[in-house]
Amino acid sequence: MTDTITTLTAPEAAAAAGAAAPLVAATSREERARWLEAVADALDAAKADLVPVAVEESHLPEARLTGEVGRTTGQLRLFAAVLRDAAYLEVIIDHAVPDATPPQPELRRMLVPTGPVAVYSASNFPFAFSVAGGDTASALAAGCPVVVKAHSGHLELSRRTAAVVAEALAGAGAPHGTFGLVEGTQAGRVLIQDPAITSGAFTGSLSGGRALFDLASGRPTPIPFYAELGSINPVVVTADAVAADGASLASGLVGSFTLGAGQFCTKPGVVFVPAEAGFEDLVAEAMGEAKAAPLLNQRIVDGFGHGIDQLAAHPAVELVAGSRSDADAEAPAPLVLATSATEVAADPEALLAECFGPVTLLIRYGSKGDLESGLAAVQGSLTGTIHAAEGEDVSALTAVLAPRVGRLLFGGWPTGVAVTWSQHHGGPWPATTSVHTSVGATAIRRFLRPLTYQDAPESVLPDELKESNPLGVPRRVDGSLEV
Amino acid sequence: MTDTITTLTAPEAAAAAGAAAPLVAATSREERARWLEAVADALDAAKADLVPVAVEESHLPEARLTGEVGRTTGQLRLFAAVLRDAAYLEVIIDHAVPDATPPQPELRRMLVPTGPVAVYSASNFPFAFSVAGGDTASALAAGCPVVVKAHSGHLELSRRTAAVVAEALAGAGAPHGTFGLVEGTQAGRVLIQDPAITSGAFTGSLSGGRALFDLASGRPTPIPFYAELGSINPVVVTADAVAADGASLASGLVGSFTLGAGQFCTKPGVVFVPAEAGFEDLVAEAMGEAKAAPLLNQRIVDGFGHGIDQLAAHPAVELVAGSRSDADAEAPAPLVLATSATEVAADPEALLAECFGPVTLLIRYGSKGDLESGLAAVQGSLTGTIHAAEGEDVSALTAVLAPRVGRLLFGGWPTGVAVTWSQHHGGPWPATTSVHTSVGATAIRRFLRPLTYQDAPESVLPDELKESNPLGVPRRVDGSLEV
Repeated sequence: MTDTITTLTAPEAAAAAGAAAPLVAATSREERARWLEAVADALDAAKADLVPVAVEESHLPEARLTGEVGRTTGQLRLFAAVLRDAAYLEVIIDHAVPDATPPQPELRRMLVPTGPVAVYSASNFPFAFSVAGGDTASALAAGCPVVVKAHSGHLELSRRTAAVVAEALAGAGAPHGTFGLVEGTQAGRVLIQDPAITSGAFTGSLSGGRALFDLASGRPTPIPFYAELGSINPVVVTADAVAADGASLASGLVGSFTLGAGQFCTKPGVVFVPAEAGFEDLVAEAMGEAKAAPLLNQRIVDGFGHGIDQLAAHPAVELVAGSRSDADAEAPAPLVLATSATEVAADPEALLAECFGPVTLLIRYGSKGDLESGLAAVQGSLTGTIHAAEGEDVSALTAVLAPRVGRLLFGGWPTGVAVTWSQHHGGPWPATTSVHTSVGATAIRRFLRPLTYQDAPESVLPDELKESNPLGVPRRVDGSLEV
Repeated sequence: MTDTITTLTAPEAAAAAGAAAPLVAATSREERARWLEAVADALDAAKADLVPVAVEESHLPEARLTGEVGRTTGQLRLFAAVLRDAAYLEVIIDHAVPDATPPQPELRRMLVPTGPVAVYSASNFPFAFSVAGGDTASALAAGCPVVVKAHSGHLELSRRTAAVVAEALAGAGAPHGTFGLVEGTQAGRVLIQDPAITSGAFTGSLSGGRALFDLASGRPTPIPFYAELGSINPVVVTADAVAADGASLASGLVGSFTLGAGQFCTKPGVVFVPAEAGFEDLVAEAMGEAKAAPLLNQRIVDGFGHGIDQLAAHPAVELVAGSRSDADAEAPAPLVLATSATEVAADPEALLAECFGPVTLLIRYGSKGDLESGLAAVQGSLTGTIHAAEGEDVSALTAVLAPRVGRLLFGGWPTGVAVTWSQHHGGPWPATTSVHTSVGATAIRRFLRPLTYQDAPESVLPDELKESNPLGVPRRVDGSLEV
């Protein structure tokens, strides 16, 4: 394993990616599947070298980071499977209809890569949402060169991971410029404005993401900026659910909001709880098990302390468990706060602000109307969760939550995000800036655009569009699906 | 037929659409298919009333406008077929894997409507890209209420068409607020900033579209703005093609760039022609057949005159056919100008500006390198066209044009845009602002977002996601496609 790679300036990296773009676009799906597998194999092999660096820089536990490498290489291998499956190309063929009025030409459509992608790493997943994470995997799968902007919270890990990725790609035959790394906030700002870059992918804070989104949208040639920003992930617990299984729900909630020290974008940040059912006491009891854990870095520590200051100082907020004075520590003890649905409806901006770290806000509701007016104040979120008793009618809650979220859970907790064909990790603003996911097979759609060939000679058609379908791709022909 | 509908203020229309959104989203695909068919039937029935109003306001010929009504109702019926086909829902189901590490929940994904859409009509298709055009049809099909901003160029037609649409929708059972109409530039600006609006769809000028795109992107809650803006639709004619069939190519070109008085976004605006092959003379000859036709309105007349002034005054531009002094007339005679690929490469901004109206610019090239450096200066376009001789190798030209366009034609002319499953009407900026099309079946994708249900009880699942697949929708289950 090489130790590090030379980082480039943003214009250098973008120029190299721009030069590589037509070469990468011209590779076959099978070639790119092998690149992704080579990167996955190399990361698995380098795990013992990389994980200690990640522990040092992120303060996350070794077991979690080791598992995260597995998640990361699993993502790379999923996109190899997506490439071989080929349905993502959305091949549609309409044969000519010469006797139509006007005569209809032959049209053959498929998705093609958009070009170089700027990927902005997240702090909280040093592997899975970073240098070799899902954005990089899906962009490379699509056939787009990638320039990663390293996260300052794990710079050394980023350099070492980038070296592994670059070496594996080169070894697998990827063109020079397929992958690059830049460092620093200013480089990130320059990168998204470079004419060679065709889209951005970002996971991080609302303020940082919005600033880059504005740069991307404000370019002379605007480009899409696929950002995952902020999410409070509302949970609703019904009185019947508390009656049926309150203690295990309370301990499940504590486990979920303190997982990874509360540093997940899917952390349950607000929990609507029945005012009278005694659920608060059960949560306070379950908090006996909760342990303090170090946060990722000083910026997160400062942000958490500031967020708690704002929230706990609100006249409508009470402390249920934990100590507010502990919130400025490097490893703050988890906190549970409480308010009411009426207060939330009256002051959503203050009470429903995302607070990254080990805190959750219980929101007491009385009537159903009370609950619904509180839920109506919730902005777009990645997830929404309903805890009801077996057989309880949840259709009204489903109808209120569904328009606000990208993933709707019935039982369970939102902090696990399975990497599958069907996953959707996105949601209405401010959860994400687009109608596409950043996790799961369909994340590839962000980096593709349609191209339709009209009356093309067979000789210039990509194999995927040829009449005989030599590669056996799923397609729609004259209106009918063929698998 | 009712005469007109009451137009609303933008906030009124947006509020009505917002109130209707959950009701529209809850309708079945079959219900919405019937709405679209009811609108199509009503427009067909009202054709004799509407076309004369369109002729009066747009100055387009009756036969063309009558045909355009057919195109419009055909689009509405295509989206009814798209709804019944159901593949657009992109249903993906992954069953639970309880013994995975970590255990994998059951996930069921489908696309759901985003909410109210603001549709901005175009001047040049008073039916097909206007009140009941493709944007409206695809948004309603998706399950989104629509507020149309009427085009000032055909206000009376817009009101009358809107009355037909509103009456047909109401008759077919669509909720109040499913469809609304607003008028005026300021209403359009207010509309796109209304919190109830979730996306915009636009066909028109680069300056107007950019202004609305900036408003949409700059909102506190940014929304996608799907705009089709400007396109010069490069055509390349090889020397062998001229040798084989020069005269009919020349007459085809004249027919295409003067069709609809050159007022199509797919008009061939620039044509790369071999310097030595005598093609210019053939074009000049074919221009004998070209007739002057009135432009849509005074704004287009002024824009055309200004564009010709700019272009024809350029020291590197010569007049091939037509008269420059005629360019300010209400029905300007068609014009052919010429320059060289070297000049284009040196001053692309001036020479490759879109000029809406009956003009095309021949760009003479000598060597292949000369041609390629000229083509390299071409920005994103809706279409690119290659005219080569039978059997001639066009792979190099394909490789240069493909990254710049959304539809690549081999022979023929770009001004026909078939409404099919496979059509792509879009392209890199400034052709469009997104990776989605505005014409053809996949235009519906703009108004949909994924929603994934995790471990949901069968009772809350939409029929399309139920295990038994009662509606027989195409889907992917545990990684395998099922049609």
